[in-house]
Amino acid sequence: MASNSSNPAGAKVLSLETMNPRVRVMEYAVRGAIPIRAEELTAQLKAQPGSLPFAKVTPCNIGNPQQLKQKPLTFLRQVSALMEYSELLAPERIEQTRALFPEDAIARAQRNLAFVDGAVGAYTQSLGIAEIREDVARFIEKRDGFPASASNICLTAGASGAVERVLDILVSGPEVGVMIPIPQYPLYTATLAHLDAQAVPYYLQEEHDWQLSIADLDRALGEARARGVDVRALVVINPGNPTGGCLTEANIEEVVRFCERERLVLLADEVYQTNIYTETNPFVSFKKVVSRLGSPVELFSFHSISKGMIGECGRRGGYYEAVNIDDQVMGQLLKLASVSLCPNVQGQMAVDIMVNPPQPGDASHAQYTAELDAIYQSMRRRAKKLAEAFNSLPNMSCNDAQGAMYLFPKVELPQAFVDEAAALGQQPDALYCMRMLEATGISVVPGSGFGQVPGTFHFRSTFLPPEELFDDFIAGFKGFHLDFISRYAGSQQ
Amino acid sequence: MASNSSNPAGAKVLSLETMNPRVRVMEYAVRGAIPIRAEELTAQLKAQPGSLPFAKVTPCNIGNPQQLKQKPLTFLRQVSALMEYSELLAPERIEQTRALFPEDAIARAQRNLAFVDGAVGAYTQSLGIAEIREDVARFIEKRDGFPASASNICLTAGASGAVERVLDILVSGPEVGVMIPIPQYPLYTATLAHLDAQAVPYYLQEEHDWQLSIADLDRALGEARARGVDVRALVVINPGNPTGGCLTEANIEEVVRFCERERLVLLADEVYQTNIYTETNPFVSFKKVVSRLGSPVELFSFHSISKGMIGECGRRGGYYEAVNIDDQVMGQLLKLASVSLCPNVQGQMAVDIMVNPPQPGDASHAQYTAELDAIYQSMRRRAKKLAEAFNSLPNMSCNDAQGAMYLFPKVELPQAFVDEAAALGQQPDALYCMRMLEATGISVVPGSGFGQVPGTFHFRSTFLPPEELFDDFIAGFKGFHLDFISRYAGSQQ
Ligand SMILES: Cc1ncc(COP(=O)(O)O)c(C=O)c1O
Ligand SMILES: Cc1ncc(COP(=O)(O)O)c(C=O)c1O
Repeated sequence: MASNSSNPAGAKVLSLETMNPRVRVMEYAVRGAIPIRAEELTAQLKAQPGSLPFAKVTPCNIGNPQQLKQKPLTFLRQVSALMEYSELLAPERIEQTRALFPEDAIARAQRNLAFVDGAVGAYTQSLGIAEIREDVARFIEKRDGFPASASNICLTAGASGAVERVLDILVSGPEVGVMIPIPQYPLYTATLAHLDAQAVPYYLQEEHDWQLSIADLDRALGEARARGVDVRALVVINPGNPTGGCLTEANIEEVVRFCERERLVLLADEVYQTNIYTETNPFVSFKKVVSRLGSPVELFSFHSISKGMIGECGRRGGYYEAVNIDDQVMGQLLKLASVSLCPNVQGQMAVDIMVNPPQPGDASHAQYTAELDAIYQSMRRRAKKLAEAFNSLPNMSCNDAQGAMYLFPKVELPQAFVDEAAALGQQPDALYCMRMLEATGISVVPGSGFGQVPGTFHFRSTFLPPEELFDDFIAGFKGFHLDFISRYAGSQQ
Repeated sequence: MASNSSNPAGAKVLSLETMNPRVRVMEYAVRGAIPIRAEELTAQLKAQPGSLPFAKVTPCNIGNPQQLKQKPLTFLRQVSALMEYSELLAPERIEQTRALFPEDAIARAQRNLAFVDGAVGAYTQSLGIAEIREDVARFIEKRDGFPASASNICLTAGASGAVERVLDILVSGPEVGVMIPIPQYPLYTATLAHLDAQAVPYYLQEEHDWQLSIADLDRALGEARARGVDVRALVVINPGNPTGGCLTEANIEEVVRFCERERLVLLADEVYQTNIYTETNPFVSFKKVVSRLGSPVELFSFHSISKGMIGECGRRGGYYEAVNIDDQVMGQLLKLASVSLCPNVQGQMAVDIMVNPPQPGDASHAQYTAELDAIYQSMRRRAKKLAEAFNSLPNMSCNDAQGAMYLFPKVELPQAFVDEAAALGQQPDALYCMRMLEATGISVVPGSGFGQVPGTFHFRSTFLPPEELFDDFIAGFKGFHLDFISRYAGSQQ
């Protein structure tokens, strides 16, 4: 047998050189160099408390609210616990269980257990449990005032997997392009690089609260098509990550018309649909606008249990709704889902509670609503406070968060610092964020991880540190930034 | 703006013609035409009981034990429930909780909650919770008697995702080939088709209890290399799915030597490692043999909470261990994991219980062991009973299941039936299975979904129907087969 001549004996068979180059070129900043360093610092503080200029690492690099002590919704967890250990519902234990769990949590656990014949430990249908897909459809109908069908809903292990699957089916070759906002959530560029497709960037308008400009869509599409790119789809993230911007209904309508005119499949990432802090731009779904216009636009919209006030990131649950999608393509999406068997059952069950929460009159209604509202009001206050802090600082400006969980301030980095970064072979914004981490323990993501207008610098910070620690967090950041500016610009201006 | 001329207005942008052809060519029989028909029949029986010649559908197409009433392990569910609703551990409730949960489940929930700082609802590290990866490493050390390191362990949402990720990183282009057993678990052919890589089939030896023949590996590799295929890796499934075969340690050693000689990365799918019913071939891991030989072979091995006696399929948990893998490739695997954020936390926690169950002296030890053993003994009895039933029938022969959850009997289909299938444009084994489903409600998977020696016909059935219904299940199957044979062969021989 001839040995494989391209791999000299002794070298690894699988190496950077031989591995899938599509994986090698992917970038993923949200969990890049800075969070890796943050993990090292966390470990150091655990091993040697007091060995760093800060007492703990503050992870503002990722929208992960329960990591920062956001309380889970009690009802959701009660129902989950009862389904996990359903022996609690057995006649011989139900009395003791009633002392610990409210009546409606027990009833909900019984109802949802029946969907799976009692077995939360069994694979479900690959698209997800039929009754939960029905509940999702009813939620969408109520939200939008237009019909929705369970047969168009697919439950997934978080929106990440849903986005990956839809992009996967869309991309037929390296000539295919997908329009993405800049700045964007890096899942999109990473997945497109992985699929060997082309990201066709369009710019959100920082000077107009990150609204989407149809003129820039036209420009980006025209340039890409002129280069021979087969542009097939457009991604919109609304409310925006990392921008915090919320689109107006008029803007959404223009986008739908644009996709119709240009024959683009529309991907609407709406995972932050309940994180809205503006009165002027309430959330309007793309599905609603497509329905109202009677548009033939092919639409996938994404939702998740990770965001909103639920914040169940670790559970991995979400769904997509497919609108106007070809029947045969729906069959192919089912096949693709089947290979991975099914999304985890408790993630599916949590989607059900998200779309079908306790109703007025239910034992848990008041508490559920109060918990949701407290989280919402607190997020809103923190969003405002952090934007004010950023805007109070020299060399920094920031749009308010109209929605989502992030601010994306612009930093004017002094030339001396930009030169220093260049000498070190680093991106200036990445170096700025690394310095912030080393000085304060605050972990944020450099703007280059999301894309930004060339020559501008940003970073993304969540506003999720707990409210009682928020002033400390802001003070830590302010101290760092003022010191940084005075060091590099020679004055605090 | 020019409209996209390749898509005439009116037609869908996304269609079978324009979609990713790599997805279109994938096949996935475990959830193919027969289970889809089985779902329709289930719905029909629900809507109109009594309208079919059987009272219920028996899903033997998939190794999904809890769907067929296998009881979950009490300790695992108790710990999960306590972590879900950790308010049960609060001082004001702990007394009531103690009345419902054993002491060691409470202690375990407290211990594992501490891994995530109380937050099972937060994204974890992308490779999984560090302490659980430590527990996995200790489990492997104890199992094999050789060192294992947490830094080589990656927790995943089931073995499916792990296999997909490892194949993804291995395949750098369409010239790359991966050797797979025939018959195989169709995840492998589906994923390789998806990645546009080449499956290089080798045949397991049905006449020798499905052992692996090095001569056939040599043949398959030689033929593929002669065709210009860049063969990079070899997949072994042990215990086998769909075969139920268990490899001898000598056979495993030969395979390791083969991979060493031929410079192949070894993928060992060992999800059935505790489903062993043979005394002669106890489970030996590839990792152990690689360690014992001091072999430089690059190895990924896969494990899952879906199988064994745990059977927590719906939870989605598993891990892979990477042995002798290049450091930079390990970094790339981390990046790839990061894009999807993390595997679901309760799946990770269940991996922890699988690898670190209650110990002698713990309150739950006796019950845990008894539950595990009862499931094991029952599976073993059912495996034997079903093989005996198959072997008692005309035109049918079947190896015993030495392991796993399946039998893969060979059926000699009468020529008249093969001709009828040809006339209908169907695979004969697929038509046989569809007839079985329509007559009995028993849903199995045709051998063509796994691959078989051309001209032979098989099907795969789990032996998971509950023991108290097992005689009915066998009687139903026997009745169908005898009737089938007498109809087509003109006699029951
Ligand atoms: C815009 C956007 N889409 C999708 C996701 C993925 O969320 P998940 O996979 O947890 O549902 C995120 C997570 O932060 C996000 O910000
Ligand atoms: C051989 C083999 N590998 C992997 C898997 C995937 O299991 P899971 O993704 O549920 O861990 C299965 C499931 O049946 C299997 O049989």
